[in-house]
Amino acid sequence: MSESEKKESEIKKSPKKELENIGFKILQQIEKNENPYLEVPIRALSNVCYDEKTKLLKLGEKKAKRYFLNIAHAKKFMQTIIIASKCKELIEENIHTSLRDMFYAVKRTLPDSDENTFDEQNESDAVIEDLEVMLDLLREQLHLNADVRGRVVGKVTILDSGDTIHWDKLGSGGWAIPSNVENIEFKRVDADFCLVVEKNAAWERLNEDKFWKEHNCIIIGAQGQAARGTRRLIKRLSEEFNLPVYVFCDCDAYGWYIYSVIKTGSMNLAHTSEKLATPNAKFIGLTMSDILKYDLKKYTIKATEQDIKRAKELMNYKWFQHPHWQRELQMMINKRYKAELEALTSKGFRFVSENYLPEKIEKQDFLP
Amino acid sequence: MSESEKKESEIKKSPKKELENIGFKILQQIEKNENPYLEVPIRALSNVCYDEKTKLLKLGEKKAKRYFLNIAHAKKFMQTIIIASKCKELIEENIHTSLRDMFYAVKRTLPDSDENTFDEQNESDAVIEDLEVMLDLLREQLHLNADVRGRVVGKVTILDSGDTIHWDKLGSGGWAIPSNVENIEFKRVDADFCLVVEKNAAWERLNEDKFWKEHNCIIIGAQGQAARGTRRLIKRLSEEFNLPVYVFCDCDAYGWYIYSVIKTGSMNLAHTSEKLATPNAKFIGLTMSDILKYDLKKYTIKATEQDIKRAKELMNYKWFQHPHWQRELQMMINKRYKAELEALTSKGFRFVSENYLPEKIEKQDFLP
Repeated sequence: MSESEKKESEIKKSPKKELENIGFKILQQIEKNENPYLEVPIRALSNVCYDEKTKLLKLGEKKAKRYFLNIAHAKKFMQTIIIASKCKELIEENIHTSLRDMFYAVKRTLPDSDENTFDEQNESDAVIEDLEVMLDLLREQLHLNADVRGRVVGKVTILDSGDTIHWDKLGSGGWAIPSNVENIEFKRVDADFCLVVEKNAAWERLNEDKFWKEHNCIIIGAQGQAARGTRRLIKRLSEEFNLPVYVFCDCDAYGWYIYSVIKTGSMNLAHTSEKLATPNAKFIGLTMSDILKYDLKKYTIKATEQDIKRAKELMNYKWFQHPHWQRELQMMINKRYKAELEALTSKGFRFVSENYLPEKIEKQDFLP
Repeated sequence: MSESEKKESEIKKSPKKELENIGFKILQQIEKNENPYLEVPIRALSNVCYDEKTKLLKLGEKKAKRYFLNIAHAKKFMQTIIIASKCKELIEENIHTSLRDMFYAVKRTLPDSDENTFDEQNESDAVIEDLEVMLDLLREQLHLNADVRGRVVGKVTILDSGDTIHWDKLGSGGWAIPSNVENIEFKRVDADFCLVVEKNAAWERLNEDKFWKEHNCIIIGAQGQAARGTRRLIKRLSEEFNLPVYVFCDCDAYGWYIYSVIKTGSMNLAHTSEKLATPNAKFIGLTMSDILKYDLKKYTIKATEQDIKRAKELMNYKWFQHPHWQRELQMMINKRYKAELEALTSKGFRFVSENYLPEKIEKQDFLP
């Protein structure tokens, strides 16, 4: 099976069956008089690595066993089973819910007791992430929705929950990206590339100028760090339609990290990279070099100690080792300023849509 | 002219002409050899009052004069004229932009000088608010967009920027509410009420259950404090289609304040209340009484000192004087706990859509 076929089959495997298998395995262990256990890949940073080949952050091979008959493991064992069972319920009833809702649904499941099965949401969140890695499924496939944010516009028609939706007939608003885009069916994708914009205000400006019509592209507004639904949508557009992805963020360590999460994945959720990250994504701006090129020095902001510290961290990440990124980061550390993408507005309200972006795209002037 | 006709004519007055009038008046003053001045209503809290009749927070009558030939006023005078002139440019070119973009566009307009006309965005924001009150226009009418957030679904068809958009044909995503809803034309509004939900996750749950179809309503997800575009949309639906508005927030002082901003307006932007606030809005939950009624005590969260302080502040606001609100606030202060709307999920994933909301609506069990 090729890498891409393998990925395909993973996405199509039945989450309900996978959940049931957890139960069956435990039953078998009990029948064999074994101490029941679950095998959970370790999600600590020590088990996170950058895979040079796929250009993705990934989980390593380390696994841990979680035993029922072990005082240190028993509570977590119980919590895992409770969440798995609730997820099965969600799938059977075909409803989706949020992490917060799940926490409240499982907070107390012991009748006639004052003991909580979960005290805080971080406990249920951690167990949900454990299930994701154990089953190699996205939490969305377990019917658990992540934060919802982001909007999209472009010459695309999709089928979602029985509705045919034209992303080019949505006026000034666009389509609100749901937290779960797994079941969206693409009917028409008439685009040469996909532009991801960190800030919704810039997205509105580009939409008003009908940039997507003029340049035949899809524009996604991420509203800060891209939500999982948005990242999965970018990934699907890139992979299924072979679309180049250009990311447009502020010129600071945070903006650049937003880009790197879209491209490479995040360290906290390294197990999701294969499904959520888009390794072909490119950075269209804003760069430190842009500040010189477009004479924006007067519109920069003094970098804080925190900014410099963060830039130094990025310099050490394996996925920022390309000499162009090293140069950009070094410039930021030396010059001690940063800039927002809005700084380009000093050149005119339409400068971004009429000059900056078209020039960058024409010259393929991207950072890797 | 009736109150509503008056409002109508205000909304339809020409922002471009209003901006030009600022210039003409100054020209006249100069021709009469007067010291040119602008008359600006005072936006300080001392000039904010609650109008019992309209149930809105409003600006009082106090005004100040801003003179050109006055060392203390000259910079602000110049800034006001620069922003007014840039807004005229936006209107003439028919483009909209954000407050942040406007700041960068006006930061330095003095050629051959190292002096900034604006050092920080709070200076340009303040001048924009001054212009709003001087001209009695929304900043959106000056083509300045506020933060964009929120999504909507329901049996509604609108016309926006040439596109016909059906809010009931948008799958799981809904329509992303733009920052400016002034020019939206409603073609069909088939709804009995409008439900505003503080949290987008709860909005997704309700949308998945097709609550809007079953109960013939419009559901708006505010994503926290409602953005101006969202507030204006609620106002328009309430006023133009006589729709009752029910607001669903967390049971804490912040959730309740989110409700009060939708209903009464905010203190900082008291001059916008007439255009953005919906005095007929009602609070559907979550209340302290709900916690007792639905036995949610186990799912509450301990209130912080900050929560209690905020609750005490609300108790003193004139628009929270209704005995039912006083009782709720007193309960919160006495019991020292709060709850999120997700606490209702402890009763089942569909409890909100199948029990809680329908029962409240049937019994008209709202807080004023």
